Amino acid sequence: MTQDDASIPLDHYRNAQQIAFAPLTFQAARVALERGVLAAVEKSRKRGITIAEVAEAAGLERYAVRVLLEGCLSLDLVSYEPTERSEHGAEGRYRLTLSGKLMLHDPLVGINMRFVHDVCYRGAFDLERAIDEKRPAGLEVFGSWPTIYAGLSELPVQVKKSWFDFDHVYSDGVFPVVAKQVLGARPKNLLDVGGNTGKWAVLCTGLDPDLRITILDHPGQLAVATRNAHEAGCADRIGAHPIDLLDHTQPFPLGYDAVWMSQCLDCFSEADIVEILRRGRAALAPGGVLYVLESFWDRQASEIGRNAVTALSLYFTCMANGTSRMYHSDDLRQCVEAAGLVLGSETELGSHTLFSCTAA
Amino acid sequence: MTQDDASIPLDHYRNAQQIAFAPLTFQAARVALERGVLAAVEKSRKRGITIAEVAEAAGLERYAVRVLLEGCLSLDLVSYEPTERSEHGAEGRYRLTLSGKLMLHDPLVGINMRFVHDVCYRGAFDLERAIDEKRPAGLEVFGSWPTIYAGLSELPVQVKKSWFDFDHVYSDGVFPVVAKQVLGARPKNLLDVGGNTGKWAVLCTGLDPDLRITILDHPGQLAVATRNAHEAGCADRIGAHPIDLLDHTQPFPLGYDAVWMSQCLDCFSEADIVEILRRGRAALAPGGVLYVLESFWDRQASEIGRNAVTALSLYFTCMANGTSRMYHSDDLRQCVEAAGLVLGSETELGSHTLFSCTAA
Repeated sequence: MTQDDASIPLDHYRNAQQIAFAPLTFQAARVALERGVLAAVEKSRKRGITIAEVAEAAGLERYAVRVLLEGCLSLDLVSYEPTERSEHGAEGRYRLTLSGKLMLHDPLVGINMRFVHDVCYRGAFDLERAIDEKRPAGLEVFGSWPTIYAGLSELPVQVKKSWFDFDHVYSDGVFPVVAKQVLGARPKNLLDVGGNTGKWAVLCTGLDPDLRITILDHPGQLAVATRNAHEAGCADRIGAHPIDLLDHTQPFPLGYDAVWMSQCLDCFSEADIVEILRRGRAALAPGGVLYVLESFWDRQASEIGRNAVTALSLYFTCMANGTSRMYHSDDLRQCVEAAGLVLGSETELGSHTLFSCTAA
Repeated sequence: MTQDDASIPLDHYRNAQQIAFAPLTFQAARVALERGVLAAVEKSRKRGITIAEVAEAAGLERYAVRVLLEGCLSLDLVSYEPTERSEHGAEGRYRLTLSGKLMLHDPLVGINMRFVHDVCYRGAFDLERAIDEKRPAGLEVFGSWPTIYAGLSELPVQVKKSWFDFDHVYSDGVFPVVAKQVLGARPKNLLDVGGNTGKWAVLCTGLDPDLRITILDHPGQLAVATRNAHEAGCADRIGAHPIDLLDHTQPFPLGYDAVWMSQCLDCFSEADIVEILRRGRAALAPGGVLYVLESFWDRQASEIGRNAVTALSLYFTCMANGTSRMYHSDDLRQCVEAAGLVLGSETELGSHTLFSCTAA
């Protein structure tokens, strides 16, 4: 079976070839985005723009603009129309496609691309080794921590920014909506497992002046969360409890009306998830509720959402921990049961699903 | 303009997102190919196969198979059909798509992918720096040569293999056809500029028992070419002339009926191409012909060929020399004129074009 096999439609061959060259063309698209090449093409609108004109607008050599735009052409980010041969040789005009407009303006696409380049690109080279060694072998690019969470606060500035931009963009939209539901049950206190920079804790203490929150996380993350709580003026109601969530001999603090795990369990293998859920169950006060907020790949509205979620699993394999992934909702339902919890309700919140669980 | 903008068709959003995650999914596809995951899926044919069954067939952990296949799903290399929930959680069946079949069996796709992974992947991270510094900054991954040609014979074994597999696959098909045309003019001697491993020289001396060939190349490449000529029993008619093609003060040896430049000029900037063509013109005996064999991106039969050719330009930028690219036929026609040559004929040979030129 080859490209000459007439029984294979050309778009399949095009897809296979596009995958084969993807790292090179990804970089062309990224540099064209970051260095104003796509923006210059957009500005020309329907008239289109030549290589020489883009070079002037973007302040780049013609050679650079040429290889970048030809790479973008192969990705359908721009279109090309040959014009009459001029004294400068081939002088066709480039125009931005709808895919190109999305790459320029859709905030999610840009954040995903910067996350993949800054955080994942180099380490993804070692995906195969990560699988064989059952650890995030690609993380060696940045340091010798066992997981990325242990080193998060020490990552290079740009890498850290791209990591947090990515982390936050997926929760920023859903947090206000889900906070209403969680706080509607009037919990007196909430245990925020893997609370990261304290975004959720600051939001909730702002919405409910009586609520007290304890954040569990690595010491490095807690320092950031505590600083953020101070800046938001709610540090008196946000406590910090350092913990290694992978050390299942360390109990969680006890007696919480709500235990909150948002975008947290996807950082662990299923065996560890069961243990963390068990410790979360033990932390519940009588009548308390354990909440799990996750993006499940089977619950996305379209293939596009599903593809973004499953691609993220590869980040977990090569960079984050080597053992976790973005889950199917069935996988997590099984973990909930295995941890002695009962799944009371499932709420769909766009790309996220909220599980509300009680002790069995 | 965002994904919520209903005026943008979803396939554009899907394309932009697929580009954003491309390095991660490229690695998933690559590892799935190299480690027997795609082969196991193909074996299941229409019945389809579960994660657990692939894990057993490929000798990998279920976790690894899962993240790899979900990545392949986002690239349409496999399809997924959920089945009844079993005791093992989500147990859908995967099947190979036509794109997946091409990835498994099309030799060009596999060779391209290995070339991109082994030779280009890590250095492509530095594409932006290569553009700014006007040199192949990504080559630092392998050594401190000014161009990849200077270090070719010293590259790691696997990298070198992928480089030559790639180089040869694009010439193997066309060489026998074009040799007939070139030798039809009965040249007594031929100057093989950038003769690399001597494939062309060995082929031609085998076809014409009277022909003498001189190969021009870096000393490292000449050592390989000479060894190959010895093995083929034609070393007495193949001479080796070490040269730095970028040093335009070094003349070529003179008096050749044919001067041959195959997949050579794309390794140089247009300014250097003009100088090399001038030196080639000077090397012609009266009535001699200078041949240029290239893959022009405007002369490919389909977008697929064009995309492969333009993606290759990015390799030249970040890995090979920082200044060259795969050319438009108009670009090279201009260089031919500027070098004082007359383009006599153009012959289309599938993905290649042969220029036959004489001194003006």
